[in-house]
Amino acid sequence: MTKSLDFYFDFTSPYGFLASQTIEDLAKTINQEINWRPFLIGAVYKEFGGAPLNNPMKFDYFKADLDRSAKLLGLNGFTWPDNFPGSPIPASRAFYWIKAQDTEKAAIFAKEIYRAYWLDGCDTSDPSHVVKVAGALGFSEEDVMAGAQDEDVKNRLRLETEAAIKLGVFGSPFIIIDGEKFWGNDRFDQIIKLYG
Amino acid sequence: MTKSLDFYFDFTSPYGFLASQTIEDLAKTINQEINWRPFLIGAVYKEFGGAPLNNPMKFDYFKADLDRSAKLLGLNGFTWPDNFPGSPIPASRAFYWIKAQDTEKAAIFAKEIYRAYWLDGCDTSDPSHVVKVAGALGFSEEDVMAGAQDEDVKNRLRLETEAAIKLGVFGSPFIIIDGEKFWGNDRFDQIIKLYG
Repeated sequence: MTKSLDFYFDFTSPYGFLASQTIEDLAKTINQEINWRPFLIGAVYKEFGGAPLNNPMKFDYFKADLDRSAKLLGLNGFTWPDNFPGSPIPASRAFYWIKAQDTEKAAIFAKEIYRAYWLDGCDTSDPSHVVKVAGALGFSEEDVMAGAQDEDVKNRLRLETEAAIKLGVFGSPFIIIDGEKFWGNDRFDQIIKLYG
Repeated sequence: MTKSLDFYFDFTSPYGFLASQTIEDLAKTINQEINWRPFLIGAVYKEFGGAPLNNPMKFDYFKADLDRSAKLLGLNGFTWPDNFPGSPIPASRAFYWIKAQDTEKAAIFAKEIYRAYWLDGCDTSDPSHVVKVAGALGFSEEDVMAGAQDEDVKNRLRLETEAAIKLGVFGSPFIIIDGEKFWGNDRFDQIIKLYG
């Protein structure tokens, strides 16, 4: 059985976006599957304390760092969304609804939502944009819209976020492999050295 | 003329320690000299907001991350000092006194102070330990002890810290190359890609 790593991320997290576009190469290199686990960073920050990206004195640095990091990863067109940070809730709920139908499509959906937000300037806080991304993957937009309002799906997102907090996930992206924790896409090199 | 990069660090910073032991390889790779610029992280945090390492809920992660990062860099024996964070002031003042005599020895002194604190558990908040490190490099311990109390030296450290803050240096280590800012030793790979 192939082992798997847990990939925790928030859909409004720019470093999460970078990780989402490169983690499949990482997983292939270390021969593991990926558990895609979106959670709500707002709840995490309430528990662990605020994010550096919220600090106006550091914001210019992070914007420059992300722009540079995206370019170096070949992710051209990285643009700061007008509505940052927006809300990750519609995309996260749609993700868990899709995941219940098709795990592979859920992973593609996650990557596409991230690209819509961080490359195409699409407002993924708006459910009508979220369902379009799902629609392009063959789902009925109406089904996704209704499914994302399902109580089980809402609960799933709540439970996933609580479980992440309990495990000590305090930022996005966050990867756990065999209980070993890695915060940030700048730990990919270490993961490859340790598990590759 | 060889170009130079500015290396900002605080002597109590564990990630600064990691950077101090590897930055010469980096500088060689990109063919630049290093300006070693110790500053006081406490003053920086007052300006920009607190450090993640001060957050008790994240502390276990950072300890594990540092231990792992040190091992992967071949820095065996990394140990969390009993008196962390202690004070960087005695070592920083001694550094600027030494630098006024001998720039190369100042760089060696910086690396040795870091090793004393992070590998040997030596209390580098204590001036008597600091001057021993300088003594091993051929300086008179009495001269260093007196020099570190010199008003010019105290002023130099204050001005260096103020200048770092003005430039937006909000953490340790922090590297500036041609005005481009890099926070963290996990940006070394990017520096090599861009300037190597």
